[in-house]
Amino acid sequence: VVARKSGQLNPACDIGIDIGATSVKAGIVKRDGRLIEKAAIKTSEIQGPDHFLTLLETLIGQMLKDGKIEKRTVGGIGVGAPGWVEHDKGIVRELTNIPDWEDVPLAQRLEEGTGLKSFVDNDANAMALAELHYGAGRGHRNIVCLTLGTGVGGAVVINGEVFRGAHGLAGEIGHITLDLEGPECACGGRGCLENYVGNRFIVENAVKRLEQDSQGAQGALLLNMAGGDPKKITPKMLSEAAYKGDTIAIKVWHETGRYIGIALAGLVNLLNPECFIIGGGVAKAGAILFDEMRKTMESLAMNDLGKETPILEAQLSADAGIIGAATLAMGCIEKG
Amino acid sequence: VVARKSGQLNPACDIGIDIGATSVKAGIVKRDGRLIEKAAIKTSEIQGPDHFLTLLETLIGQMLKDGKIEKRTVGGIGVGAPGWVEHDKGIVRELTNIPDWEDVPLAQRLEEGTGLKSFVDNDANAMALAELHYGAGRGHRNIVCLTLGTGVGGAVVINGEVFRGAHGLAGEIGHITLDLEGPECACGGRGCLENYVGNRFIVENAVKRLEQDSQGAQGALLLNMAGGDPKKITPKMLSEAAYKGDTIAIKVWHETGRYIGIALAGLVNLLNPECFIIGGGVAKAGAILFDEMRKTMESLAMNDLGKETPILEAQLSADAGIIGAATLAMGCIEKG
Repeated sequence: VVARKSGQLNPACDIGIDIGATSVKAGIVKRDGRLIEKAAIKTSEIQGPDHFLTLLETLIGQMLKDGKIEKRTVGGIGVGAPGWVEHDKGIVRELTNIPDWEDVPLAQRLEEGTGLKSFVDNDANAMALAELHYGAGRGHRNIVCLTLGTGVGGAVVINGEVFRGAHGLAGEIGHITLDLEGPECACGGRGCLENYVGNRFIVENAVKRLEQDSQGAQGALLLNMAGGDPKKITPKMLSEAAYKGDTIAIKVWHETGRYIGIALAGLVNLLNPECFIIGGGVAKAGAILFDEMRKTMESLAMNDLGKETPILEAQLSADAGIIGAATLAMGCIEKG
Repeated sequence: VVARKSGQLNPACDIGIDIGATSVKAGIVKRDGRLIEKAAIKTSEIQGPDHFLTLLETLIGQMLKDGKIEKRTVGGIGVGAPGWVEHDKGIVRELTNIPDWEDVPLAQRLEEGTGLKSFVDNDANAMALAELHYGAGRGHRNIVCLTLGTGVGGAVVINGEVFRGAHGLAGEIGHITLDLEGPECACGGRGCLENYVGNRFIVENAVKRLEQDSQGAQGALLLNMAGGDPKKITPKMLSEAAYKGDTIAIKVWHETGRYIGIALAGLVNLLNPECFIIGGGVAKAGAILFDEMRKTMESLAMNDLGKETPILEAQLSADAGIIGAATLAMGCIEKG
């Protein structure tokens, strides 16, 4: 730590906050990407924006104390939030998990409450930054990231920076069209990628296939794992069952991989990224999913070099949200 | 024109060359976007890369002479070519209209032959630059351009620069998926936008509708324009017939607009551009096409601000290719 001007130090770490549906995770991240302190709040216990800010301030104070970290060595605070965030204005527009949330100027309010420079972004953008700086994206400048979970998030990195578009809306890869006559999507669109590969749809695909499996031979293992109740199937079960040879589970992953591969081929033609990085819970299915993605993208993308675009697994799964949010703060502070 | 260093002048103009299927158009473009000299070669008369370079050198010399322009006032030469161009390397990879073309280092060879700095790019990228500097894109930094013709070309402009991707392949908007089970596309993909809105498919749509129109009441006007032969229908005829009230022609344009609108909605979700700029022959259909594009995009895009993304008509139709190629040279020289 080197002195900058009187009383100020070159920052040694940043604080990352990852707002999720079940918990808000916070952490202190060193500038080499190491997470050195961690804490969390249950999202369901947050009563509103004011309450959230009070809780965050306490949490941050406690983490600094626990880690014996001087506030003046902290660069800033980054927050990753699901949904629509206007990074440039510091506003988190929508946050369905916290009551009474509407257009909260979170960056400004955090700065006022903590005295630390604060920045907000969409959570998928924050995760892309983490992969770019410390994960599968190191050395690349133009990448497309997908986060496969309940929703399908995404981020587009251009010339080493997250591309946010005119109103911070860019990167919604889950909502590009796969089928113009497909099912209506919650987003108002039709036949969006998320309608084929979001958690719920993967499970629905398995349930439908089990129903059609009249002899019960193909999906016996999967059904057994779910205690005989198809409604209890999870993507994790599907993954385990597939690797144990369950035919239905294998088919579901192949189909999921094919859908994602179709979207990736379109993205190769449109953005020609150096690589794709795929993360999120569903990506844990591993080779059975990735091989099919690659095969499909290769067969459909336009150009021989495009067909070879690497599809990489995200490397920072568990804490990617926290690390990404801290990386956001680091990057914004370095740009000045 | 101000002296820079001994013998060199601040450039007053650039040369733009637009390689098309029927003709190669060349022109001298002042740095305010005015085209002051123009010439052309028939593409079919070009016997190969060497012949092409000889023809170009003669053409450029003649234009400079005709315009009484000193070579030292010319910034450089820009070339827009259809298909795959690696701008960074100065290589035009593929050019189906000129025999024996394969990976020609056109920028270097033009420099050697003319003594002028030379640059190459995809033609849709060059046209996007023209619109950005002198047309509908003025004042914007993040735009998506579509060129509707025999093929559907595109360009993505990010932070005021054409985004070319890892291998110069980016911007192939004609080859994003609209229907994962759609018709096979010449590009190797399936259900690509071009399969629905390329010239040939628009005409095929009309022909199919005429065949189904057993009483001949709906498309009488259109069929009459084509001299009774549905095979002779052109997009231009379809446009004229539609404005005169031909029901089939109107339906074809509405359907075409809907297809493009679906693609634009996906692009809003993915890239959130400040505006779309739509050019090319098919775009001349005007309001009947644009209104349907807007309606569809508005109904399908995710966010209220996204739904409002302006869809603008390109302003530099006839000479956009030449002006764009010259703008390419200007931009590259200014960046140094």
